[in-house]
Amino acid sequence: MFRKILIANRGEIALRILRACKELGIATVAVHSTADADAMHVRLADESVCIGPPAARESYLNIPSLLAACEITGADAVHPGYGFLAENARFAEILADHNIHFIGPKAEHIRIMGDKIEAKKTAQRLGIPVVPGSDGGVHTDEEAHRVAEEIGFPVLVKAAAGGGGRGMKVALTKEDLSQALSTARSEAKAAFGDDAVYLEKYLGTPRHIEVQVLGDGKGHAIHLGERDCSLQRRHQKVWEEAPSPVISAAQRAQIGETCAKAMRELGYLGVGTIEFLYEKGEFYFIEMNTRIQVEHPVTEMVTGIDLINEQIRVAAGEALTLQQSDIVMEGHAIECRVNAEHPTTFRPSPGKITHYHVPGGLGIRVDSNAYQGYVIPPTYDSLVGKLIVHGKTRDECLRRLRRALDEFVVDGIDTTLPLFRTLVRTRDIAEGKYDIHWLEHFLVEGEGKVLV
Amino acid sequence: MFRKILIANRGEIALRILRACKELGIATVAVHSTADADAMHVRLADESVCIGPPAARESYLNIPSLLAACEITGADAVHPGYGFLAENARFAEILADHNIHFIGPKAEHIRIMGDKIEAKKTAQRLGIPVVPGSDGGVHTDEEAHRVAEEIGFPVLVKAAAGGGGRGMKVALTKEDLSQALSTARSEAKAAFGDDAVYLEKYLGTPRHIEVQVLGDGKGHAIHLGERDCSLQRRHQKVWEEAPSPVISAAQRAQIGETCAKAMRELGYLGVGTIEFLYEKGEFYFIEMNTRIQVEHPVTEMVTGIDLINEQIRVAAGEALTLQQSDIVMEGHAIECRVNAEHPTTFRPSPGKITHYHVPGGLGIRVDSNAYQGYVIPPTYDSLVGKLIVHGKTRDECLRRLRRALDEFVVDGIDTTLPLFRTLVRTRDIAEGKYDIHWLEHFLVEGEGKVLV
Repeated sequence: MFRKILIANRGEIALRILRACKELGIATVAVHSTADADAMHVRLADESVCIGPPAARESYLNIPSLLAACEITGADAVHPGYGFLAENARFAEILADHNIHFIGPKAEHIRIMGDKIEAKKTAQRLGIPVVPGSDGGVHTDEEAHRVAEEIGFPVLVKAAAGGGGRGMKVALTKEDLSQALSTARSEAKAAFGDDAVYLEKYLGTPRHIEVQVLGDGKGHAIHLGERDCSLQRRHQKVWEEAPSPVISAAQRAQIGETCAKAMRELGYLGVGTIEFLYEKGEFYFIEMNTRIQVEHPVTEMVTGIDLINEQIRVAAGEALTLQQSDIVMEGHAIECRVNAEHPTTFRPSPGKITHYHVPGGLGIRVDSNAYQGYVIPPTYDSLVGKLIVHGKTRDECLRRLRRALDEFVVDGIDTTLPLFRTLVRTRDIAEGKYDIHWLEHFLVEGEGKVLV
Repeated sequence: MFRKILIANRGEIALRILRACKELGIATVAVHSTADADAMHVRLADESVCIGPPAARESYLNIPSLLAACEITGADAVHPGYGFLAENARFAEILADHNIHFIGPKAEHIRIMGDKIEAKKTAQRLGIPVVPGSDGGVHTDEEAHRVAEEIGFPVLVKAAAGGGGRGMKVALTKEDLSQALSTARSEAKAAFGDDAVYLEKYLGTPRHIEVQVLGDGKGHAIHLGERDCSLQRRHQKVWEEAPSPVISAAQRAQIGETCAKAMRELGYLGVGTIEFLYEKGEFYFIEMNTRIQVEHPVTEMVTGIDLINEQIRVAAGEALTLQQSDIVMEGHAIECRVNAEHPTTFRPSPGKITHYHVPGGLGIRVDSNAYQGYVIPPTYDSLVGKLIVHGKTRDECLRRLRRALDEFVVDGIDTTLPLFRTLVRTRDIAEGKYDIHWLEHFLVEGEGKVLV
């Protein structure tokens, strides 16, 4: 087992990793920019090293500084958390060159999954369902019609050279297709100087469902069920839950085993998340994240498994002792990401927390680096903390979340707590009826939604 | 279901009850003495009523004031918590006379279990194992020797009129018995003017093990396993855990079913705890508490059952839907009672909490009414809060407790946190090897104990 782990991150995830290390009896090194000298994880770590000025590229993304911090402290492993260098294959290789363990997957797997096209090809090869499409450009209207009939309407016409939604058109029926092709081609030509287009199945109201996997790099891998992260604003997850309100035990077992089997074939090491769009009973691969995720606690709450503990142990070369049959989903968990943002305008609200009081009691977990008197710096993400609630049923979980949100006090800055107090009282959320567009619509329609 | 519950208590248990009410969607009334106007549960309740000056007999024990508070607010039920009026049968009857529900057992059961002799007789009648003894006075040495041989040495010779340890002698072997009888008789004669003595089996190094029961007053009752509360100082529990490190699944099922069966025969309503001394595989009834207990969270953590929620629902006349097979013990939980007391002298330390920060993360629960700026009044018990930790195994639970204790900050007053930081590092506790005398010995021997 590692003797000393350097935590190459900040905020709540740095504290989360520190807690896992303490419980494993491993010494910890916190690193911090000058903006984070008073951070909670710095206070609680066995040692700490200042690695640079506030700007992340000069501190948390500064590989030479991090290497120097490892040298100074004698750390034999680095946990990258999420964001920053967590999915940087080169960082993993550089650490290996210095005989320091990277707590994450093999560099080749980070690299494959970091490349969208390569990732989709790999997923397909491993038997993971992907969005059906034309597998390359469509050159004529006839070819487009044939492919569209194969994959079924509605279809999405996308510019091969595209990005940011330009050159992208939906054809709801075959009557729309010729028009969509011609518009997409001319937009693509105008925007990218290239009128090549391809087709993909269009998902109108999908949910975001992701599967947590865990492998030991020696051919053993399991899944820990799914998370439903459909409540998003500008592609940022806001509220996550496990299990998904729309996935049956049979579906969970099937998609879970598909993912676990793929990881066994890959020889995947560590924790990972395979993200899908989900519509009408079908899963469509989006991407794989080769790191721990912000929303991992909901999985921990329903399985009882400490994911960071497992991640560290397999990174240290231990075989994964958990079998698939050890993973039992108990009850329901919901996570709310409490951000230092105005609850309706979402303007960031850094500054000093003048009063801070977290909810307590049965089924409540708070993962936060905040404390009374803490100053949230303007430099990084606005996550103040995560409130995670567990109940025996989804209904109990929602009732508990409601009372916990009412107890949570963060004064001195704006937070998204009032948004969650509203969300937890909406009928659609109470009934689990929401897709990836629901929250954006809700934020526009606002008061129009019936409250329970 | 009740519409509005008046919480006739203070401190962390008042907050605990309030949380359960909120999750059930029941309106809450907090009552408070003038010393508790700023208490957390008062702040969070839908309504609050001041019921008198600080002295408990004029406020929390003041039945006319509580009745008036019910009248004013229209509360249709009263939750008494623990302590104060929780085991006052007369209070339950007075409430019934006023058409207000008492959230607790039938008055007759409170009364029976409140009388030690009646309780022991009832337990015996219901098949609950009690301490074997002479069932009345022993009049001659011959009779005493016969009884002692029956129950087995060592035996305790106790003055029938005794109390406070006077006229009590241990006979380790039959050779000691005549001397013990003669000394006990003369001490009893001198102290109480009555030399009548009786015999009881003497337990030298017992553990305190208690069984949680839950009944609906309609003949259905279950048990929720045991708690081990052997770590005590001056008969006050300090640290409790579930399950006990020394009880097997078979023993749990057996003593649990014995208790549940007894509750079914009694038609017991609500939550209750049947307390035992435990030695060499045998259980010996001490008493039954007909209320929720301070240490109930450890049972909640391993079973996932919200005991206050269940208690309220059966008090409202709902049938208990939980079956014995629904109760599955998952992992291990430990509770530390953090008191506002000096950690070695145990001198109470009321006053203002100048800095307060609770631990967070996976497996951590804090039940506390404290907050930064809260002033602990000198009038009541010294409980600041309870730290409850859950882990998949007892070892994981201990490791997690260790790191949680290191995160817990309560400044401005003395607390027993440093005591727990020491206890969690002792070998005997790590190995689960302690009886009801262990903590008292440890507090004297102190540094002599090997730390892990």
